[in-house]
Amino acid sequence: MTTPAAPVQWPHGKKAAACFTFDVDAESALLGVSTQHADRMTAMSHQAYGPLVGVPRILDLLHRHDVTSTFFVPGYTAHRYPDVIRAIADAGHEIAHHGYLHESMAGLTAKEEATILDRGLDALETVTGQRPVGYRAPMWELNWHSPGLLADRGFLYDSSLMDAEHPYELSISGKRSIVEIPIQWALDDWEQYCYIPDFSGSGLIESPRKAAEIWGLEFEGIRSVGGCFVLTNHPFLSGRPSRALVLEELIRYVSSQDDVWLTSMSAIASHIRGLVLTPRSIERPDPNDF
Amino acid sequence: MTTPAAPVQWPHGKKAAACFTFDVDAESALLGVSTQHADRMTAMSHQAYGPLVGVPRILDLLHRHDVTSTFFVPGYTAHRYPDVIRAIADAGHEIAHHGYLHESMAGLTAKEEATILDRGLDALETVTGQRPVGYRAPMWELNWHSPGLLADRGFLYDSSLMDAEHPYELSISGKRSIVEIPIQWALDDWEQYCYIPDFSGSGLIESPRKAAEIWGLEFEGIRSVGGCFVLTNHPFLSGRPSRALVLEELIRYVSSQDDVWLTSMSAIASHIRGLVLTPRSIERPDPNDF
Amino acid sequence: MTTPAAPVQWPHGKKAAACFTFDVDAESALLGVSTQHADRMTAMSHQAYGPLVGVPRILDLLHRHDVTSTFFVPGYTAHRYPDVIRAIADAGHEIAHHGYLHESMAGLTAKEEATILDRGLDALETVTGQRPVGYRAPMWELNWHSPGLLADRGFLYDSSLMDAEHPYELSISGKRSIVEIPIQWALDDWEQYCYIPDFSGSGLIESPRKAAEIWGLEFEGIRSVGGCFVLTNHPFLSGRPSRALVLEELIRYVSSQDDVWLTSMSAIASHIRGLVLTPRSIERPDPNDF
Amino acid sequence: MTTPAAPVQWPHGKKAAACFTFDVDAESALLGVSTQHADRMTAMSHQAYGPLVGVPRILDLLHRHDVTSTFFVPGYTAHRYPDVIRAIADAGHEIAHHGYLHESMAGLTAKEEATILDRGLDALETVTGQRPVGYRAPMWELNWHSPGLLADRGFLYDSSLMDAEHPYELSISGKRSIVEIPIQWALDDWEQYCYIPDFSGSGLIESPRKAAEIWGLEFEGIRSVGGCFVLTNHPFLSGRPSRALVLEELIRYVSSQDDVWLTSMSAIASHIRGLVLTPRSIERPDPNDF
Repeated sequence: MTTPAAPVQWPHGKKAAACFTFDVDAESALLGVSTQHADRMTAMSHQAYGPLVGVPRILDLLHRHDVTSTFFVPGYTAHRYPDVIRAIADAGHEIAHHGYLHESMAGLTAKEEATILDRGLDALETVTGQRPVGYRAPMWELNWHSPGLLADRGFLYDSSLMDAEHPYELSISGKRSIVEIPIQWALDDWEQYCYIPDFSGSGLIESPRKAAEIWGLEFEGIRSVGGCFVLTNHPFLSGRPSRALVLEELIRYVSSQDDVWLTSMSAIASHIRGLVLTPRSIERPDPNDF
Repeated sequence: MTTPAAPVQWPHGKKAAACFTFDVDAESALLGVSTQHADRMTAMSHQAYGPLVGVPRILDLLHRHDVTSTFFVPGYTAHRYPDVIRAIADAGHEIAHHGYLHESMAGLTAKEEATILDRGLDALETVTGQRPVGYRAPMWELNWHSPGLLADRGFLYDSSLMDAEHPYELSISGKRSIVEIPIQWALDDWEQYCYIPDFSGSGLIESPRKAAEIWGLEFEGIRSVGGCFVLTNHPFLSGRPSRALVLEELIRYVSSQDDVWLTSMSAIASHIRGLVLTPRSIERPDPNDF
Repeated sequence: MTTPAAPVQWPHGKKAAACFTFDVDAESALLGVSTQHADRMTAMSHQAYGPLVGVPRILDLLHRHDVTSTFFVPGYTAHRYPDVIRAIADAGHEIAHHGYLHESMAGLTAKEEATILDRGLDALETVTGQRPVGYRAPMWELNWHSPGLLADRGFLYDSSLMDAEHPYELSISGKRSIVEIPIQWALDDWEQYCYIPDFSGSGLIESPRKAAEIWGLEFEGIRSVGGCFVLTNHPFLSGRPSRALVLEELIRYVSSQDDVWLTSMSAIASHIRGLVLTPRSIERPDPNDF
Repeated sequence: MTTPAAPVQWPHGKKAAACFTFDVDAESALLGVSTQHADRMTAMSHQAYGPLVGVPRILDLLHRHDVTSTFFVPGYTAHRYPDVIRAIADAGHEIAHHGYLHESMAGLTAKEEATILDRGLDALETVTGQRPVGYRAPMWELNWHSPGLLADRGFLYDSSLMDAEHPYELSISGKRSIVEIPIQWALDDWEQYCYIPDFSGSGLIESPRKAAEIWGLEFEGIRSVGGCFVLTNHPFLSGRPSRALVLEELIRYVSSQDDVWLTSMSAIASHIRGLVLTPRSIERPDPNDF
């Protein structure tokens, strides 16, 4: 039977953990759905804002607050903006895997998914000279076979599931495991800010103040239960000046809390791995079972 | 002619009633629409958060404030998470019927609907050892034949209609009746919080503060007319830390109001039944009548 | 060439006018789109809330503040709830035309539209004993032939256009005219509150405070230009307790402003007619003209 | 490789620039999608509000604050409302190009797009007696061939891209260039206010206070990085009384900032042209490249 993830011990007497993560989707967000979006010069420029303007601004911001973070990068973004991705790594941040063209893996066979995973790995290794240890499924669509594919490739952790606010060891067929650092839709800037005609959103765009209210409340909530707060921001969205200013207020606040361990995803995952937790199994639901 | 539900007397000199209800849809919310959603590991984990994390958190919260509540549970949720559902019952809360796989009953024949009702009843009885007395239609889609099916199965009450803020005896063909405890869309957390790609929502996710403002205002409104405030929350949504904190503020407030009877749905329904009200008929509209 | 509507003089030295109007759509809102919605017992109960609960509550509210208003009523609502509609009229409010089954007139021929107009007229006359003088197109979809059909039937005014905040005489082929009292989407409660699955809305439901902020700001704006503030509320939506409380705050405020003439639509229309304004022509756009 | 736009020097020791722009779409917004919308009298009146009421109100507002601005005008709007467009020009504001019938250029061939550009140019020249120097793509859908078409026709600037908050010289095949003044979705009133059934929007309409909060925060953000704040408003939306009042508050604030150069788009573009910047190339993404 599926059981809940248990609270974990945090290092240095901390009571909770936090990581500000950034998905550098850039053009891939649209191209992974249809490469025909490449014809739309304005839509492409909207996405290019991420690596061109958003990432440098966010790097400055993280530097000012001495925060180490994790950037999930589709392979195509690394190919198209190698200097940008190297600048992230050079600033001491983690580069993690986010597909090649931000492909939805939903419904893909293991073989098809493996091809994309390898293409993304190659791109990131070629550009940064380092093999990533973390993965986040594009559109947060993990298949039941995905954890095994990640373990095959030596990944330490995944960050695509939503069933806990504590990280855990995710059992793979009871034989192996991978660290899972869970996320959720409310801790994502896409729902608050993203409008791209003929692609995403109903048209509504929220105020940074509203987004910060949701994220700030959830930070306090997750801290109160000793969990791991993982915020997902996209440089093409949250790199805009006013959103970055409001995000900075939140980062300043979180980074000044003595009981919170603010670090990168790989540091969290390594810590979890070191706890030698009993892996947790998640059963695929089958309504014909009963 | 259809006439409005009249205000009712509340016990112990109370001026209004209130119940915080929880729909433990879990995976069924998606599987009842298409079992293919079972392939989506992340989406399933988003739903599993309800029974795994949300329910225990909500049970603690209700315990802290000494509040008895009602949980509407699809049969499949009881089959998949029997310990969770038993823990709810063991804490003194009511388990009520919410379909088997959260199936929309819209357009089903009476026979088809009866099969689902019985399957759900069997699941809840098997898991909890008790036959539920209350029903809420999945997606709040009641058919005109549904009340008769519920009466056939000995249900005391239904909670799926929206034409009043006072409970009433709903006449079934003028011969029998069932207690109806009405609800409404604005007193539901789904509209405020639920985003599941390729399933539900336009993408927008609201702040718990906004949800609490709507619910708090409506509580005062319903109290002022002596009605019955029924809030519907989903553990996979409102079980998230910050939402639970804000919900707790509302529960604390409501539970501290001397003129409000805060209790379970079955207690409210039993009280209504004891009033021996004249059953109220609702005429099916037929625009060809005139 | 189409020219703007000019500001008008208001009686008694008032600087602006205001009317709180109510569209008693009830079941027709759905049935006019498809009569199959009649099978949905919950959805029908959601609409029945309007005449059963919302209208009496609003009548009390208007009475408390001594405000005379206008209710736009589809013929089918009058047929199904004759006592409710007579109670509105008996309280001194105006009953105006709003289609028979809230049919969208978009794309209908003049003959088809005429049939519906007559059916609605008959229903209202039969139920109230009075012939309505005002019309509002269901879904605010006026056809270019509609004003002529209304003039043929002796209507004094229409309230379905959005090109001004001052009422005007709308020229009909340069020979006749009808008073137009313009409205707009932002002064409607549907956009803020209406969620009916498989029928209307993206799922989002707003707080009454937000709705009141929009309406209150626009009241001040329209007052500042000497216009006519027309708010459109639906009893099945704004009749809910908290929404009615917030609406009452606005009505209390508006009714206490000495420089604002708060009255019914027919009173406003009669005043406009008495000004003997030069009718204003609106040209149908034809992009092939140039 | 595509590189980011660099900050620019502003004249008179200013630290940032700002322009309040207005897209006078009027009926074209709908007709460009389908001329059948011309049959919808109410929808057309909603759009006519822009030139008839919104534009004069905005002209007054700009005059009160001594602000010079830019109005992007589809050719059809100029044909249908020549006096309105001439009044804008006579007040000293810039008239710029915005298609003929607000056609989406997405997927059009260069030849098809050229025909529309020329038709729009002819209309504006005929009506105002002046050839426009600026262009904004309808729906902000620029094609990769569009900048060349604009350069062929002698345009000084375009304002349709989203990859920067600093204006730049956009290289055209490395041989020519056009000034680009970038914009973005969050600085547009359409997303906050526009609801037109069967055409645009999910139904939600926001409060002017919320829109002003987003725009005010982004103004501060762009000022802090020395960029160019370009707000896009539509007279049929932001010309409504309360929205105009709230917009006026923002204009008053921005116009009173000593370090901000508030002017028209053509003035900004001329300044940028005078800086003799190295043109910036934007590479069309091609995921098959790697």
